[in-house]
Amino acid sequence: VSAGPATEDTSVLGRLVALLDLERVEVDIFRGANPGSSPGRVFGGQVAAQALRAAGATVDADHRAHSLHSYFLRPGRPGVPIVYRVERIRDGRSFTTRRVVAIQHGEAIFNLDASFQRDEEGLDHEIAAPGGVPDPESLDRRDARGWHHGPMDERDVPDPVAPGDGRRVARQVWVRAAGTLPDDPALHACVTAYLSDMGPTGHPHLERVPREAFMNASLDHAMWFHRAARADEWLLYTIEPVSTSGGRGLAWGTMHTRAGRLAVVMSQEVLLRTRR
Amino acid sequence: VSAGPATEDTSVLGRLVALLDLERVEVDIFRGANPGSSPGRVFGGQVAAQALRAAGATVDADHRAHSLHSYFLRPGRPGVPIVYRVERIRDGRSFTTRRVVAIQHGEAIFNLDASFQRDEEGLDHEIAAPGGVPDPESLDRRDARGWHHGPMDERDVPDPVAPGDGRRVARQVWVRAAGTLPDDPALHACVTAYLSDMGPTGHPHLERVPREAFMNASLDHAMWFHRAARADEWLLYTIEPVSTSGGRGLAWGTMHTRAGRLAVVMSQEVLLRTRR
Repeated sequence: VSAGPATEDTSVLGRLVALLDLERVEVDIFRGANPGSSPGRVFGGQVAAQALRAAGATVDADHRAHSLHSYFLRPGRPGVPIVYRVERIRDGRSFTTRRVVAIQHGEAIFNLDASFQRDEEGLDHEIAAPGGVPDPESLDRRDARGWHHGPMDERDVPDPVAPGDGRRVARQVWVRAAGTLPDDPALHACVTAYLSDMGPTGHPHLERVPREAFMNASLDHAMWFHRAARADEWLLYTIEPVSTSGGRGLAWGTMHTRAGRLAVVMSQEVLLRTRR
Repeated sequence: VSAGPATEDTSVLGRLVALLDLERVEVDIFRGANPGSSPGRVFGGQVAAQALRAAGATVDADHRAHSLHSYFLRPGRPGVPIVYRVERIRDGRSFTTRRVVAIQHGEAIFNLDASFQRDEEGLDHEIAAPGGVPDPESLDRRDARGWHHGPMDERDVPDPVAPGDGRRVARQVWVRAAGTLPDDPALHACVTAYLSDMGPTGHPHLERVPREAFMNASLDHAMWFHRAARADEWLLYTIEPVSTSGGRGLAWGTMHTRAGRLAVVMSQEVLLRTRR
């Protein structure tokens, strides 16, 4: 731990890496540290990342996460360790599936299903990367707006363009870990899960009305890992709001590597309730 | 049961409705009929629809399904009834969540998490419906290619256009139940789940190589129900392949009502393995 902007980044990133270093209480039970500094509730990306870490710890190293589906059930409480109970749904030759329930004070706050696959060759196709996007080096780093943005270097892209066609209105950000991560592909997937939780950002109404007018919370979060990517190298994260109705907002997103490969697809539904 | 094309449709649809009329073995255990006529394996859309039906049967009528996330674990066997075991994850004032495990011969073949919400008002936004699509009446009904397409009236749209921008290559079909369904919104959601499972259709490689060259199976399936829609009225189902790699293909899809409202969003990952 030392002072100064550059080393501060490293230190904050080190705290995230430490959050993903779970304590193994039993073969299929893990405990995740959960610092108490964040006000309100635990950042959903942290819970998703820890849960994916727990699931992966019960899977052979030659199987990698290719998808996850999760629901947020109750707000996580800062300062209370989170226990992750893993259920071994299926162990197959090609595919392995796990269920994880995240628990605080005896209550499930989150659950996640994840599927892991042994690497195999196959056909290759992807939605085209957005074109004409400025390099991250030419954009300013966003001010960290709280602990959970601290470990990430995020650069908002002006005039965002969608993958595939380049026309849709979308929110877009270059993002990477603010420092170098260990060479562990499973860790990189977990950090990608962490940074993928952008909450209600990008939903059109939020751009037009004060943030305080909304009560929001993540409802679900899904990810598909298509191609290996390092979370400490730039990922172009494009988020497209799809629908808002009934107090809920759905967005989907894509993460392309700097080389233009589609690394991750995500979907997230959030509560977007107007305060009365 | 009677002969002739029009009444045959009704009869086949009646069989689908009967599949969704589950036997309640215990409060949270249901048994679904599973006819043995289909060769190979059970149609995934049937299992998803029955599982959603089971989940909904344990939820207060004023909560409606707004999302589901599911994994296909093992191929379902035709001719063997499927038992659906429901776990009550959470009962909340606004949101209720359920977990369903589908079982045959003691093995889980499928699991599903679903979230139900009490209707509430809120802001409204949606990705724009595809424009310039021909009316379903002007298109030919696709030949039923097996039992699981029988209950549906499907009309392939030539030159498909994507929602939002109208440029992406996509697969598009007008689809509705081939007859009138009872006025039960939960049943309509289940039939929508049934018809949403299009498997690997739309993935670009499949258009170019013989279908026999691929081994395919659904891996996961997710849906978000944004606005109430009848499954016996036309839905414009647009499917966009997003990525193919590692033997897997991900597509997302949208269903717009004829009035241009976004009713459903879905995602599906399928195994797309080339036969050796």
